[in-house]
Amino acid sequence: MNGKGPAQTLQIRRVGIDTWRESVVYLHRDCPVVRAEGFQALSKVTVHANGTTLTAVLNVVDDERIVARCELGVSEDAFARLQVAEGHAARVDHAEPPPSIAALHRKIAGDRLGREDLQAIVADIAAARYSKIELAAFVVATHQFELDRDEVLHLTQAMAAVGQRLDWAHDVGAGPVVDKHCIGGIPGNRTSMLVVPIVAAHGLWCPKTSSRAITSPAGTADTMEVLADVALPTQRLAEILRATRGCLAWGGTAGLSPADDILISVERPLALDSPGQMVASILSKKLAAGSTHLLLDIPVGPTAKVRSMPEAQRLKKLFEFVADRLGLHLDAVITDGRQPIGRGIGPVLEARDVMQVLGNAPDAPNDLRQKALRLAGRMIEFDPDVRGGDGWRIARDILESGRALERMNAIIDAQGRRTPPPPGPLTFDVAAPVSGTVVGVDNLRLARIARLTGAPQVPSAGVDLAVRLGDRVEAGQPLYRLHACYEADLAFARAMAEADSGWRIGDAATLPRDIVDGRGLS
Amino acid sequence: MNGKGPAQTLQIRRVGIDTWRESVVYLHRDCPVVRAEGFQALSKVTVHANGTTLTAVLNVVDDERIVARCELGVSEDAFARLQVAEGHAARVDHAEPPPSIAALHRKIAGDRLGREDLQAIVADIAAARYSKIELAAFVVATHQFELDRDEVLHLTQAMAAVGQRLDWAHDVGAGPVVDKHCIGGIPGNRTSMLVVPIVAAHGLWCPKTSSRAITSPAGTADTMEVLADVALPTQRLAEILRATRGCLAWGGTAGLSPADDILISVERPLALDSPGQMVASILSKKLAAGSTHLLLDIPVGPTAKVRSMPEAQRLKKLFEFVADRLGLHLDAVITDGRQPIGRGIGPVLEARDVMQVLGNAPDAPNDLRQKALRLAGRMIEFDPDVRGGDGWRIARDILESGRALERMNAIIDAQGRRTPPPPGPLTFDVAAPVSGTVVGVDNLRLARIARLTGAPQVPSAGVDLAVRLGDRVEAGQPLYRLHACYEADLAFARAMAEADSGWRIGDAATLPRDIVDGRGLS
Repeated sequence: MNGKGPAQTLQIRRVGIDTWRESVVYLHRDCPVVRAEGFQALSKVTVHANGTTLTAVLNVVDDERIVARCELGVSEDAFARLQVAEGHAARVDHAEPPPSIAALHRKIAGDRLGREDLQAIVADIAAARYSKIELAAFVVATHQFELDRDEVLHLTQAMAAVGQRLDWAHDVGAGPVVDKHCIGGIPGNRTSMLVVPIVAAHGLWCPKTSSRAITSPAGTADTMEVLADVALPTQRLAEILRATRGCLAWGGTAGLSPADDILISVERPLALDSPGQMVASILSKKLAAGSTHLLLDIPVGPTAKVRSMPEAQRLKKLFEFVADRLGLHLDAVITDGRQPIGRGIGPVLEARDVMQVLGNAPDAPNDLRQKALRLAGRMIEFDPDVRGGDGWRIARDILESGRALERMNAIIDAQGRRTPPPPGPLTFDVAAPVSGTVVGVDNLRLARIARLTGAPQVPSAGVDLAVRLGDRVEAGQPLYRLHACYEADLAFARAMAEADSGWRIGDAATLPRDIVDGRGLS
Repeated sequence: MNGKGPAQTLQIRRVGIDTWRESVVYLHRDCPVVRAEGFQALSKVTVHANGTTLTAVLNVVDDERIVARCELGVSEDAFARLQVAEGHAARVDHAEPPPSIAALHRKIAGDRLGREDLQAIVADIAAARYSKIELAAFVVATHQFELDRDEVLHLTQAMAAVGQRLDWAHDVGAGPVVDKHCIGGIPGNRTSMLVVPIVAAHGLWCPKTSSRAITSPAGTADTMEVLADVALPTQRLAEILRATRGCLAWGGTAGLSPADDILISVERPLALDSPGQMVASILSKKLAAGSTHLLLDIPVGPTAKVRSMPEAQRLKKLFEFVADRLGLHLDAVITDGRQPIGRGIGPVLEARDVMQVLGNAPDAPNDLRQKALRLAGRMIEFDPDVRGGDGWRIARDILESGRALERMNAIIDAQGRRTPPPPGPLTFDVAAPVSGTVVGVDNLRLARIARLTGAPQVPSAGVDLAVRLGDRVEAGQPLYRLHACYEADLAFARAMAEADSGWRIGDAATLPRDIVDGRGLS
């Protein structure tokens, strides 16, 4: 009759289901443990096996082909965390709530959290003790104006503390370790791939790690991957930096901010990205990556992530406050986010733009070149030996002399060169419906259209722009070309582009002055 | 090469996994649709099959024994919603965000929502278009003081509108349809099972539906189920009411507030139950059940759900505001929630208390009897022919004359009589550690101990109280007896009770005056 107690061991069975950063275990409905413990679907349970414990969510199974009555099925994520073989003995019982749940409830109730509260929450998140529901509760409760700047500082420190930490002191001594980050939202805008070789050629240590696209048609990691391997172990990163002073790697392998990786799995489907969370996410990774100097690019525009100058200023000050207290030298620049930067949108097309600028090709996109030089110049001024104001000229000399291209090739070879495929062979030109001046563009719509062509999963897919704000167009003249590899992709993207191309054609008199005379925000 | 388009049909396969109110679909990682659509783990997808569409969360599978490459695995919940046979053709594509997501984002940002916003959100929730993450976002965003009273009204109306609606006009004409609800949190307290037969015997129409225990050791549905069937189709309810004027059924079969059922699946693990959500949950169900008059019991005590009189008053006023605008006649009473009501905690023990009171047994728990008479008296005064102040005397006469017991037996027979099992045979007496006066009790701890004995899954398990606040006890005298059916259950409950019994023994001088002289809040 006794249905309980430590004698109730189960055999681990790997269930080949990918539950994406949430550990799920599967128990048969008639498993004696389910009845004895009073487990229900979605109960949070603790798994004990071979000295390891793991918090997981329970799915109750009615099919013995998935798990038998004496088995504990574990999802791929749970299997990876447990690190025991199939058939290993395990026990399972009700999970105690994570230690930080009381702090989470205080935040939901509107309280201000202290340093220890945020440390406890981040430790629980990094240890996968929060369910998706609890993660969502944390993300919503800390959204918008709910985190004050001290809380953001403590959250950032806590997030950096639970990850791996890179230390370059052995290589650079007291010298700067420079990095560059854009808060995102602008299609194209692949400046990192220009800035890193320029700055590295100047001699600064620039270990740049980037993310893959989450909701955009290409991230820097996706674009660099067209030219070179980007999934590099930390040890390889150090070797590459010693050889070239720069790298352009995917940050996912470095484990720099595991709590952030988990939070993103909830922020992404909720499309929530509050200032506090953004600052903590970015700066915790930079701190963990061992950066000492950071150039931050905040694009502003009606369809950018930041919509107005006052909003950009508030975000800049929040970044500065936190960075100062972390001992991170931060230089934030507010740039023109009213339209895409460069011509290509999509990994292959953006890589092409980058290589054109590095090769000083006469038809290289000038907006991308100018923005990259501006940012690289600011970074070069992180060098204590460079006089304030000289950075731009130094950057331009490095680019024009071919030393930037040479350094990029060295980085590509060091990471592992790949041959970029050509742009998608299936094309369609989206034409201006009327004659007039290009007076507006919807970045978000261009990004959606580019994603419909298949980018970034299909690297050759994307959008190649033919116009910029202020250009005069005639009816029927192409605004951009769609590139795809599959007919259905092209058809979907074309249908969306024909419904609304994203560009507005109108009266030149409505254009802001700085676009008419060619002086942009940046 | 073309991996997309409507030609890509898959075969439905039922995957016997219970994902509890969230529809999950399983696709093999190498399924062409996964690659073509760029699906990732936890992508939200729309399933199209046989004219039905369904929103679901994707789990990516690496094991062909769970789903083959041409199959679309569906969890039990998704299978039930789709209502098509295994092997049926289905298509799957990226889900558009639910129409109300913009309103959810405005609520997260702190906006006040209008009637249409809340209607749209509730419609999406009831149609299972929100993921668990989105549900959690809604629950947290509307928590605490975030919903103003107009929002609570609109939420309540929207929740009632998406469910089934019972209409008793054919039976009662313009006469009252009375109901009674306690906001919960007090162990024992099984007054509904006394109030319903008393009020029905008086002649009022009282279609009482109750929930099962969520976090407590027994709900009214669990306790009534010891004596009679409670899972009754709506049609049966009507027949029973015509015969007896009262019923004590489980509300889960009636589908009265499907959005609420789904919200609870998130509120429960988050342990969030804000005033606005509580009011909307309770009143939407009463409205859908066709009630015209509601007696609401709000227990107050240091370990009750409501901790202070000001808090109880605020909650009462919110209930009154919403009920008035719904045309629901609401009478809210604030009662003494400082200790359990009755002796038994657990379905069988609580059913025993109820039958003792109905049978006018000399040792029947007097606190339960008095509270039930008070509540029944207030409900009887909903009868337009009863003079204000006469209800209590009428209720007492019905109880003392045996007419309440007679009516309860009629209700039990009509629902389908069951023979209650005896209390759990394994027992342990928890003794007072010192001599003194019982000056305090932790309701939450008693509830946890009762759950450890096995209640409510094991109906015979529970706690049988031997003392009340104000009693004088000697060291070694029993405070309560544990009943269990399994040795391990008894051992767990005993260990917790021995660590802290939940009762405080101290100096009689610290007791509030009303307990010393026997006049409680109620």
